[in-house]
Amino acid sequence: MKREKPKYKQIVDAAVIVIAENGYHQAQVSKIAKQAGVADGTIYLYFKNKEDILISVFQEKMGLFVENLQKILDDEISSSEKILRMIDNHFRVLATDPHLAIVTQLELRQSSKDLRLKINDVLREYLLLLDSILVEGFQNGEFNKDLDIRLARHMVFGTIDETITTWVMNEQKYDLLSLAPKVQQLLLHGIQAK
Amino acid sequence: MKREKPKYKQIVDAAVIVIAENGYHQAQVSKIAKQAGVADGTIYLYFKNKEDILISVFQEKMGLFVENLQKILDDEISSSEKILRMIDNHFRVLATDPHLAIVTQLELRQSSKDLRLKINDVLREYLLLLDSILVEGFQNGEFNKDLDIRLARHMVFGTIDETITTWVMNEQKYDLLSLAPKVQQLLLHGIQAK
Ligand SMILES: CCCCCCCCCCCCCCCCCC(=O)SCCNC(=O)CCNC(=O)[C@H](O)C(C)(C)COP(=O)(O)OP(=O)(O)OC[C@H]1O[C@@H](n2cnc3c(N)ncnc32)[C@H](O)[C@@H]1OP(=O)(O)O
Ligand SMILES: CCCCCCCCCCCCCCCCCC(=O)SCCNC(=O)CCNC(=O)[C@H](O)C(C)(C)COP(=O)(O)OP(=O)(O)OC[C@H]1O[C@@H](n2cnc3c(N)ncnc32)[C@H](O)[C@@H]1OP(=O)(O)O
Repeated sequence: MKREKPKYKQIVDAAVIVIAENGYHQAQVSKIAKQAGVADGTIYLYFKNKEDILISVFQEKMGLFVENLQKILDDEISSSEKILRMIDNHFRVLATDPHLAIVTQLELRQSSKDLRLKINDVLREYLLLLDSILVEGFQNGEFNKDLDIRLARHMVFGTIDETITTWVMNEQKYDLLSLAPKVQQLLLHGIQAK
Repeated sequence: MKREKPKYKQIVDAAVIVIAENGYHQAQVSKIAKQAGVADGTIYLYFKNKEDILISVFQEKMGLFVENLQKILDDEISSSEKILRMIDNHFRVLATDPHLAIVTQLELRQSSKDLRLKINDVLREYLLLLDSILVEGFQNGEFNKDLDIRLARHMVFGTIDETITTWVMNEQKYDLLSLAPKVQQLLLHGIQAK
């Protein structure tokens, strides 16, 4: 597998930095090669083209991300606690890597239909994991039995995503991670007074 | 004001169609002129360049949108009902104009920092209106007194936005408008069982 070739990780990490700093459209393969400290030709041993780099980088990082989250969720904790862990994990990964946050919140939002379908295909993995938490909570009685899983997915992911994009647009200048418990409470209870 | 010049509206409407069908980066000014049935030079009487067209189109539509919503909100109804009207209005405007929906959900998500700051500056108008509903509900006791207005804003807007983007990515093939009451209930009560 190409993932195991020695320079693969080096190129992936360089691509995140170059895409975050230049924008996807200005991130030439030669810039990525330079950042990775490899020859331009080496990149093509691993990737077909720039689009392939973007999708592969996202797949690679998403794979690790979902694997890590899966482990966290394997603990015997309530479904509400799983929602918190999920938010915490998501905020944590992006708060500790400013370049990754710019790539996920701005550069992966490509409007070209073909490319976007490939990006969203990778995102699906994560959303299915979210669905599994929602279904579990629904079955064990923690979550509302009338829950529309699709809309609940949009609420949970949409709230996380909007919170992060605002933080990125504000130059990541306040503490994102500390917002996780408040975001979880909002998602659990909504805005109405009890 | 240039808004009152006769061909302004014609160009704005043409721009929405051309940007939706070609993508912002492939939407040449000459294509917009052709769609509007005006000479290329005419466009430059109204707009400096393509970026100016995108921002102006968004400002123009947002202006009408917010004005319309403001009227709806002037009615003497509860804050929860205002949230519903807001969702309904948002879904309705996009569900009745497929091109507008593609532009708002995909083409306005530009990653270029300068352009994005201008886009988000226009979006702010709408979010401030949302804040005013949240603050009102907070003051009249309908909404949770511990509400973090900023996070509540992210939840309400993020949920609406994610629901619409998913509908756009699914080729707008199901009824978006009918989801409004369920989305409102989710936002009011959250996912937890009562
Ligand atoms: C042609 C078609 C047109 C159709 C029109 C009509 C049809 C309907 C359309 C409606 C939908 C339109 C959707 C299109 C949107 C495209 C853009 C997106 O991608 S949207 C989807 C993606 N979303 C986005 O792109 C939105 C990203 N967000 C933003 O860019 C901004 O929030 C804003 C500009 C939107 C509002 O700004 P504003 O309200 O002015 O300000 P903030 O609250 O941000 O910050 C104020 C201060 O508070 C600080 N602070 C904040 N939070 C915290 C905290 N938790 N702890 C501590 N501090 C915090 C912060 O640092 C700042 O500090 P300082 O600087 O004063 O020191
Ligand atoms: C290098 C950095 C890497 C870092 C990685 C690690 C760090 C953390 C990262 C995590 C965050 C990553 C964020 C980056 C994301 C970039 C993309 C965005 O912009 S995200 C922000 C913007 N958001 C997006 O771009 C997401 C847009 N959403 C989508 O594209 C898709 O939902 C999906 C592909 C995500 C999931 O798809 P899937 O789960 O497979 O399917 P659906 O449910 O959609 O549909 C299934 C069927 O149900 C039908 N149906 C659905 N609802 C309704 C309804 N209410 N009534 C009736 N029917 C409905 C529907 O028509 C379809 O019918 P059919 O075709 O079977 O007949």
